Amino acid sequence: MPEGKEKNADKRRKCVLLAAERSFVASGFHGARMAQIAKEAGMSPGHIYHYFESKGQIIEELIVTHFAEKMEMVEQFEQAGDKVVDHFIENLEKNLESSSDPFWSTLMLEIFSEATRNPEIAATLEKMDAEIKNRIIEAFRKNLDVEDLEARLEIFVAIIQGIGIRNIVAPDFDQRARIQKARDVAEFLFRQDENGMRAVEKAEA
Amino acid sequence: MPEGKEKNADKRRKCVLLAAERSFVASGFHGARMAQIAKEAGMSPGHIYHYFESKGQIIEELIVTHFAEKMEMVEQFEQAGDKVVDHFIENLEKNLESSSDPFWSTLMLEIFSEATRNPEIAATLEKMDAEIKNRIIEAFRKNLDVEDLEARLEIFVAIIQGIGIRNIVAPDFDQRARIQKARDVAEFLFRQDENGMRAVEKAEA
Repeated sequence: MPEGKEKNADKRRKCVLLAAERSFVASGFHGARMAQIAKEAGMSPGHIYHYFESKGQIIEELIVTHFAEKMEMVEQFEQAGDKVVDHFIENLEKNLESSSDPFWSTLMLEIFSEATRNPEIAATLEKMDAEIKNRIIEAFRKNLDVEDLEARLEIFVAIIQGIGIRNIVAPDFDQRARIQKARDVAEFLFRQDENGMRAVEKAEA
Repeated sequence: MPEGKEKNADKRRKCVLLAAERSFVASGFHGARMAQIAKEAGMSPGHIYHYFESKGQIIEELIVTHFAEKMEMVEQFEQAGDKVVDHFIENLEKNLESSSDPFWSTLMLEIFSEATRNPEIAATLEKMDAEIKNRIIEAFRKNLDVEDLEARLEIFVAIIQGIGIRNIVAPDFDQRARIQKARDVAEFLFRQDENGMRAVEKAEA
């Protein structure tokens, strides 16, 4: 395929993904029809199958795209070397705000729900999640010497995914106050080694 | 209506709710048809409308039933008086295990997803959530003197709802290790006042 055509096809695929996100959030994964997604993307109902075979394939590509974005964040952690915990906590509020906005949280709920019923989507989600978690663990190990690092990360990821839900269930509570408290918990989980010694104190000792 | 008939009707309603839970988990809220729920409950497709007008009404009743169960837990907190934090932490693992099993987590995901699209369900969820949270705050105040108690609770509820998701996304990680770490965070959030003084130390002072 000539280069220009390939680029054009890439753009159309991205456009379909954006239209699909909108449709899934508005109507749910099951409520959104391929024809509706095609219309949102400004193409004919038949044309969309030129890019994606099914809604399942679209959701898989959304997961992959989302995790590629997260990987950029992980690369920054890696570049911070033995200052990784500082870097993580300094950028936490910014990262939490973008990952817990209602649009994104709603889309995540759709993806998680679908994963409980579709083994292929579950497998993609599980693989991406493990990959990103392992890279974060490796980066954090340079700065934090604890045996239960994975459990600490698991709880923190639970907080990130959970405050997205809280934003939906209790929309009147100040999301910034939640995020600030999440930062306190991050300090508790990632600044302390097994003996209760803070990473910062250790660097100073 | 004679008492016997009323009881019978109650039983049939409960049966429909159980069948609906199963169907929502198996096929999703949108995938589950009223006819399928009726079949699971052992009644004719027309008969189910005698008990519930719509799937929306069923999901509303599921929320109310779930929160009534949570209220029993809150009553135990209230009875613990100024020992409420101890009581909460001692029973945490048991409570977390039941609220984060995959069946229940999947059902919650369906309900939260639907709430993003159905304002009536969102309103019921929001009302119940606020009611239970306010009662817990009142109970905790007897044992914990901090200004940001609501933010602390918000983060802990985020953990509870988030570890249900983790159980789906990372099923190979030991759920008990997650729950144990959640307990550490509960100690951090609820045993410490603004000056970093632990509730226990205070009682001893």
